[in-house]
Amino acid sequence: MHTDLVAALDIGGTKIAGALVDRQGRILDRAQRPTPAQEDGDTVMGAVDAVLGALSASPLWQRVGAVGIGSAGPVDASAGTVSPVNVPGWRDYPLVARVRAATGGLPVELIGDGVAITAAEHWQGAARGHDNALCMVVSTGVGGGLVLGGRLHPGPTGNAGHIGHISVDLDGDRCPCGTRGCVERIASGPNIARRALDNGWRPGPDGDTSAAAVAAAARAGDPVAVASFERAARALAAGIAATATLVEIDIAVIGGGVGKAGEVLFAPLRRALTEYATLSFVRRLAVAPAQMGTDAGLVGAAAAALARSEDPAVAGV
Amino acid sequence: MHTDLVAALDIGGTKIAGALVDRQGRILDRAQRPTPAQEDGDTVMGAVDAVLGALSASPLWQRVGAVGIGSAGPVDASAGTVSPVNVPGWRDYPLVARVRAATGGLPVELIGDGVAITAAEHWQGAARGHDNALCMVVSTGVGGGLVLGGRLHPGPTGNAGHIGHISVDLDGDRCPCGTRGCVERIASGPNIARRALDNGWRPGPDGDTSAAAVAAAARAGDPVAVASFERAARALAAGIAATATLVEIDIAVIGGGVGKAGEVLFAPLRRALTEYATLSFVRRLAVAPAQMGTDAGLVGAAAAALARSEDPAVAGV
Repeated sequence: MHTDLVAALDIGGTKIAGALVDRQGRILDRAQRPTPAQEDGDTVMGAVDAVLGALSASPLWQRVGAVGIGSAGPVDASAGTVSPVNVPGWRDYPLVARVRAATGGLPVELIGDGVAITAAEHWQGAARGHDNALCMVVSTGVGGGLVLGGRLHPGPTGNAGHIGHISVDLDGDRCPCGTRGCVERIASGPNIARRALDNGWRPGPDGDTSAAAVAAAARAGDPVAVASFERAARALAAGIAATATLVEIDIAVIGGGVGKAGEVLFAPLRRALTEYATLSFVRRLAVAPAQMGTDAGLVGAAAAALARSEDPAVAGV
Repeated sequence: MHTDLVAALDIGGTKIAGALVDRQGRILDRAQRPTPAQEDGDTVMGAVDAVLGALSASPLWQRVGAVGIGSAGPVDASAGTVSPVNVPGWRDYPLVARVRAATGGLPVELIGDGVAITAAEHWQGAARGHDNALCMVVSTGVGGGLVLGGRLHPGPTGNAGHIGHISVDLDGDRCPCGTRGCVERIASGPNIARRALDNGWRPGPDGDTSAAAVAAAARAGDPVAVASFERAARALAAGIAATATLVEIDIAVIGGGVGKAGEVLFAPLRRALTEYATLSFVRRLAVAPAQMGTDAGLVGAAAAALARSEDPAVAGV
């Protein structure tokens, strides 16, 4: 029996995406369902089952040897459970056991969504060839993951690289997570927009108050919009520099909606990094925009499953 | 020929210590010289040569198979060079090549001093049995190192775990390293003492204005002294929580002079951790005082040399 493919699941608060992926990271088949995020846990699992059902109807399914899952967090890879903030019906939900059962006992690898994005950028994107990298998603929230010593570093529970919830302002505003001055509390899209509005920025005739609208205003020279992105850039720089100082990364890759703002974000970010990344071993740290598109979560989940199945020490675990 | 021993060097701004260490971490012989820290580079190297000369006079020397060096940083393990802040004569100084030459070509492993302390605490101290740990020295400065996945994580240049110079207060006071609001700028002994004095604390008749004197005053109930330790504890908590959130450690070990302050530090530190370490996967994080004494640097340098020589993939590198 050929088992040269893996099934990948990308589970978020809006949609559940699935794909069959080969060892080159090509997506050969795919399925998707909306996430019934406000329903009970079994209903949410029903959507996962529907995606798996659609995939297993493919003639390629018999070549699938493992399943990789990238899920909104927190996850607990050691317990095989997930507790996505935006899916209240799933708390310590035994997703790994359910997916294993639904696939006839295939090995299942679970990682957080930030870790999955990182696996994808390291395999095929902006972190390719970098043995020590931080990859981030800056959008509604701020997530991330780490590559250390040439390998994905999910940590024991699959949540490592959670840069959105480290404090860079210990007396700062309280984040919904409970901590003060989190990177996310300063640098996420909604916080960029909120800060611009609080300081007097007003949207155009279309009423668009998104971070993308603030970015457009900043590009047009609006000083309040510029200042809000500069503040976000400083928080990101402090967090990236902290990560580099702690684990010696040489590149930080930034994706997500805010990451697409371009030089409005990256120019002040590079300036701020010279202030916060000062020790000799972090001064060469580079920042780069993400290269993977919306399939990053699927490709990364596939990468994690393939990496696990290729490591003889843990094969089949 | 037996090569069951390693030679260890602990190089700081005050002294250069050396030892012959067996595979159980026992120190069988030792030598020490003051560091001529303000002299030129070759004079400093002369002190290292003197320590190695004294060790090599031991009948045990013929059993030495490798040398481990823990040095004040920054170091560059990939280049084999050191640039200790307090030893200006050494800038990108080729210490590894010099020690290799002085020992007839023995393999030499170089790590930062914070990483060395970590290796020792993980081998024989408070981090023993923990696969993911941060070990810190809080004294004149704040240093540290990481154990990830059961192994020391020195990083490519040997400086990983440099928690003293991550920013937890992005608008804070500037640290001599250039960054604002570093953990060290808030939590080191001199900064604890400075803050207490700035806020009106006055020393006793002996005129002692050290952090140890502030700790004694805090134990006696002086509110300004208590507040200065609480502020240090908050900065340490924010830094430790950031580390746990980024790489999933389950214990933080704190040594050094400030670490010896006991509950004056640890009680507010544990309270502050409940504020800054809020995500599910970091909530069980423990803090503990260091267990290794003044030989930690030597034992850790020996551990690094032994670990390297036992890893067949990198033996002799």
